[in-house]
Amino acid sequence: MLQTMSQAFIRTLREDPADAEVASHKLLVRAGYIRRAAPGVYTWLPLGLRTLRKIEAIVREEMDTISQEVLFPALLPAEPYKATGRWDDYGPTLFKLTDRKDADYLLAPTHEEMFTLLVKDLYSSYKDLPVSIYQIQTKYRDEARPRAGVIRGREFVMKDSYSFDIDDAGLEASYQAHRAVYQRIFQRLGLEYVIVNAMSGAMGGSHSEEFLHPSPIGEDTFVRTDGGYAANAEAVTTPVPADVDASGVGPAREVDTPDAPTIETLVDFVNAEYPRSDGRAWTAADTLKNVVVALTHPGGERELLVVGIPGDRDVDMRRLEAAVAPAEVEMATDADFAAHPELVRGYIGPAAIGPNSPARRAERDADGNEVPTGSVRYLLDPRVVPGTAWVTGANAPQRHVLDLVAGRDFTADGTIEAAEIREGDPAPDGSGPLHLARGIELGHIFALGRKYARALDLTVLDENGKSRIVTMGSYGIGVTRALAALAESNHDEQGLAWPIQVAPYQVQVLATGKDDAVFEAAADLAGALDEAGVEVLYDDRRKVSAGVKFKDAELLGMPYIVVVGRDLAKEGTVEIRDRRSGERTSVPVAQAAERVRELVQAALAGEDAARE
Amino acid sequence: MLQTMSQAFIRTLREDPADAEVASHKLLVRAGYIRRAAPGVYTWLPLGLRTLRKIEAIVREEMDTISQEVLFPALLPAEPYKATGRWDDYGPTLFKLTDRKDADYLLAPTHEEMFTLLVKDLYSSYKDLPVSIYQIQTKYRDEARPRAGVIRGREFVMKDSYSFDIDDAGLEASYQAHRAVYQRIFQRLGLEYVIVNAMSGAMGGSHSEEFLHPSPIGEDTFVRTDGGYAANAEAVTTPVPADVDASGVGPAREVDTPDAPTIETLVDFVNAEYPRSDGRAWTAADTLKNVVVALTHPGGERELLVVGIPGDRDVDMRRLEAAVAPAEVEMATDADFAAHPELVRGYIGPAAIGPNSPARRAERDADGNEVPTGSVRYLLDPRVVPGTAWVTGANAPQRHVLDLVAGRDFTADGTIEAAEIREGDPAPDGSGPLHLARGIELGHIFALGRKYARALDLTVLDENGKSRIVTMGSYGIGVTRALAALAESNHDEQGLAWPIQVAPYQVQVLATGKDDAVFEAAADLAGALDEAGVEVLYDDRRKVSAGVKFKDAELLGMPYIVVVGRDLAKEGTVEIRDRRSGERTSVPVAQAAERVRELVQAALAGEDAARE
Repeated sequence: MLQTMSQAFIRTLREDPADAEVASHKLLVRAGYIRRAAPGVYTWLPLGLRTLRKIEAIVREEMDTISQEVLFPALLPAEPYKATGRWDDYGPTLFKLTDRKDADYLLAPTHEEMFTLLVKDLYSSYKDLPVSIYQIQTKYRDEARPRAGVIRGREFVMKDSYSFDIDDAGLEASYQAHRAVYQRIFQRLGLEYVIVNAMSGAMGGSHSEEFLHPSPIGEDTFVRTDGGYAANAEAVTTPVPADVDASGVGPAREVDTPDAPTIETLVDFVNAEYPRSDGRAWTAADTLKNVVVALTHPGGERELLVVGIPGDRDVDMRRLEAAVAPAEVEMATDADFAAHPELVRGYIGPAAIGPNSPARRAERDADGNEVPTGSVRYLLDPRVVPGTAWVTGANAPQRHVLDLVAGRDFTADGTIEAAEIREGDPAPDGSGPLHLARGIELGHIFALGRKYARALDLTVLDENGKSRIVTMGSYGIGVTRALAALAESNHDEQGLAWPIQVAPYQVQVLATGKDDAVFEAAADLAGALDEAGVEVLYDDRRKVSAGVKFKDAELLGMPYIVVVGRDLAKEGTVEIRDRRSGERTSVPVAQAAERVRELVQAALAGEDAARE
Repeated sequence: MLQTMSQAFIRTLREDPADAEVASHKLLVRAGYIRRAAPGVYTWLPLGLRTLRKIEAIVREEMDTISQEVLFPALLPAEPYKATGRWDDYGPTLFKLTDRKDADYLLAPTHEEMFTLLVKDLYSSYKDLPVSIYQIQTKYRDEARPRAGVIRGREFVMKDSYSFDIDDAGLEASYQAHRAVYQRIFQRLGLEYVIVNAMSGAMGGSHSEEFLHPSPIGEDTFVRTDGGYAANAEAVTTPVPADVDASGVGPAREVDTPDAPTIETLVDFVNAEYPRSDGRAWTAADTLKNVVVALTHPGGERELLVVGIPGDRDVDMRRLEAAVAPAEVEMATDADFAAHPELVRGYIGPAAIGPNSPARRAERDADGNEVPTGSVRYLLDPRVVPGTAWVTGANAPQRHVLDLVAGRDFTADGTIEAAEIREGDPAPDGSGPLHLARGIELGHIFALGRKYARALDLTVLDENGKSRIVTMGSYGIGVTRALAALAESNHDEQGLAWPIQVAPYQVQVLATGKDDAVFEAAADLAGALDEAGVEVLYDDRRKVSAGVKFKDAELLGMPYIVVVGRDLAKEGTVEIRDRRSGERTSVPVAQAAERVRELVQAALAGEDAARE
């Protein structure tokens, strides 16, 4: 059926939505693709749904080459998630509910448990393996900060697949097969991607990689080296420097540091008042900043943690979150400080915290074992190796300590990857300096291993009749997010500009002016294209100006815009505009349908070529 | 990609699932189409998902002729449902939850509110109307009694559409357009249907019709007359007889009725001890049975209700439920009786209940107005018209009253349609005696009117610039249930037997025996069919006996089964079996692919013919 604008359930908006910050969000709303129903929950309007379904179709076609499609419920019983611990581990991100019989249910954020149980239910022998099954399904996550429209929503469409193998080699093969299929999918979608090492987070598993779409609005920071290293910033480990010989460093000394509340003022002050004896100046990198954060563990317990990092770096909250997952992190509150008078805000130093502090010693029992009730853990950046000397807080207002030497003067409970990564930092694999960029996470592949199979007792009998725990992979693609990423990387000032494979319609035909002959010719052309199997949206609105029609067509973003207007009477021609290149071609109206059909075919073939 | 049984995620079961009572449920589970995840919540395995998607595609194709597809979230904010009252009206059937900010959400049972708000959001003028939009989407209802597999589930796929018109004539046109499309959809699906008048229930609205699939396992009872009347039993109104002249009936008299605890023993007793003066015998139809039920209103209040019906009929719980919706009904409990000593179980009579009973009089205030605190309402079957005389309870153990005349000796609070409908009862429209049958509700179309538009303030400006409330229709098809109905009406003792339009695969090719040549020929044939665009499932399993393969193929239910086996070497032929007719044809192997392709084409064309 030919879709006309006069009948279409499409309304474009002139104003950006108040809550929108990124281009894809603004344009998808303004062009009538999506509509907000609740925070992070969107309704798909006809144009948006067409594009979503086209993306799903490409994902499905490629997935079908290695996996079989099923469909799980979104509403799931709690028991399997309690068995694996994720009922708690997911924390407040999990939507929980009870039914009329007070049984616990959840809205699934991902389906490892259910797939594991399904395979357990139907399979029992090594001969049944390997197998991979997948679904394209609606997922639910009660994100603390839904953002950027459908980039991070609370209800979204995800492709999730799972592989089941008898041994590690099988898992590796399944993992690589998925990796290859993901590459094809993103190529076909026309989405640039980088594969980076990633943290596995609440998912568990031995290793994982993310497919990131480089974009300045991406939530993820990733790093690359010219030597081939690539990782999500969350997953970057800091190369640990060698221990330092501190024999030449004098004893630690406490000093008054009035009016030095910041790292910068502190450095200026000590350079002025306590210049170094070795001639070089103190820098922020010589200071040790102790940042107090509060963790909330899945069970709900709150714990204070002090993170000690060189004063020239900030804490990267995403790296910190990844390091302490599944706990959630926030900055310590006034109440937290009130409960811990040993933490003197702005002047916290190692002496008041860590295993040897008075507060911690007071908690040891008769045998010297720590009884950690309400204690504050202290974790250090990996650069704070034994022998390094620091300017840091003296645990009293306007007092600092100089030449406090790690290992000699203080210890901590361990290290933590929480400091920001900087352009030029060394890569952990020695492959050179890191380059930073931002990206949108499109997909994530996990070599899960046996965590879920063990928790849910998924075993098969091997060749010798022995019971073996199955090893699994789990592989996700954010279908909704892929759509947002496509909008983000395919637009200009005027609006959306879709690649033809995912455009809601391939062609938009505009009839402009008031001439009946124009409308008749446009209707004929649109009809002919529709007959020829081209997907057409025909702007047949009579009382809408040409200017508004052009603006709407550019906002909606179909790859080809065919204008039937003044030139028809004068020259017998119509104009074909390429939305992305801006190129305009006049063609005789009689040849227009065939010409457009050829353009569409060629464009589809061109994008198909990416599959090979 | 050619799907082989050796690789397919299909496992057939020999045993019926323990919880299955109806054939479609048993077979869909045994054939590996669905798998239970929780009560009333199912996982779709590859075969089931293929059939579900084919049904959806047919629904979509027909809906697209009159409506535009969108997709709403399943997770919805509570506010709109509070505005229309359905947050409460749906009672415990509504899955409710809160998010991490304690905001109220629900899993949508149907989307009237959201569609209304969307149109309000985007439309403002009569020129925008009429419009119809629809979705095929997952719905949630916490059914008290999920049953029969996917026939009544708690998570299920529904097509719901909504029409928006400026006036009643527009609504009627939209309603009729949907009605016609529904007829085409069920014809194409090959599902017999009857259109019956229905109750609108919690939905509200002026009138509605159901599309019922006649089936002995259907939950709905419906009636038809030869004169063309058709209605769900819930919606049948009892023709009210004329008042009776009771001047000849003597005064009511209480009598001892020892050992007459049932209607039957009571009738025998009064015929023996108190024979009628007019010569005919007492019958059960002369007795008035008073049944005590407890209603739970949406707000949670519990109310006792006594329903008085002729003793020759039972209360039909579904009719009663429909009559008191949105309240829920259950039989009164021991606690209820304990709280109301005036209700003498087994001997309840009008004197103890109804507006003139001592209990109710005691509740009147000084001005004689009723203060209904804990009072029991009394509603009568419409047949209990003034002047009718009854044998009924005397509110004391083993005592009854004879010749108690309605209107003269007792009154009630009104009438209620709660008595069962019987074969041969008169139709309300005078079109003859009613015939009863059972059916599965496939679809329901509602002329909603302005209820939702008024509650949510959906207005448009008319030609004169005046604000007008929009009038709406709402139209549902149970997609999941249609699949179950198809399985229910397309199976035999051996298994499923799908119509070709909805079969997961059109053909199943079996290689039987151990001969390599057989497997090669079968693989060639399956490959050739796949190449020709025929949907093939190829049973290539090497270690499975021919008997098991036949059994599996018959259980899975593909329309054509092609057997490559012994006859190949002997005669150079393969056998084509028609799963539904049982017909078997031998064809030379070289011609088999073409022959099967023709059969498939012809069958598809035949079912397509239903569209015309």
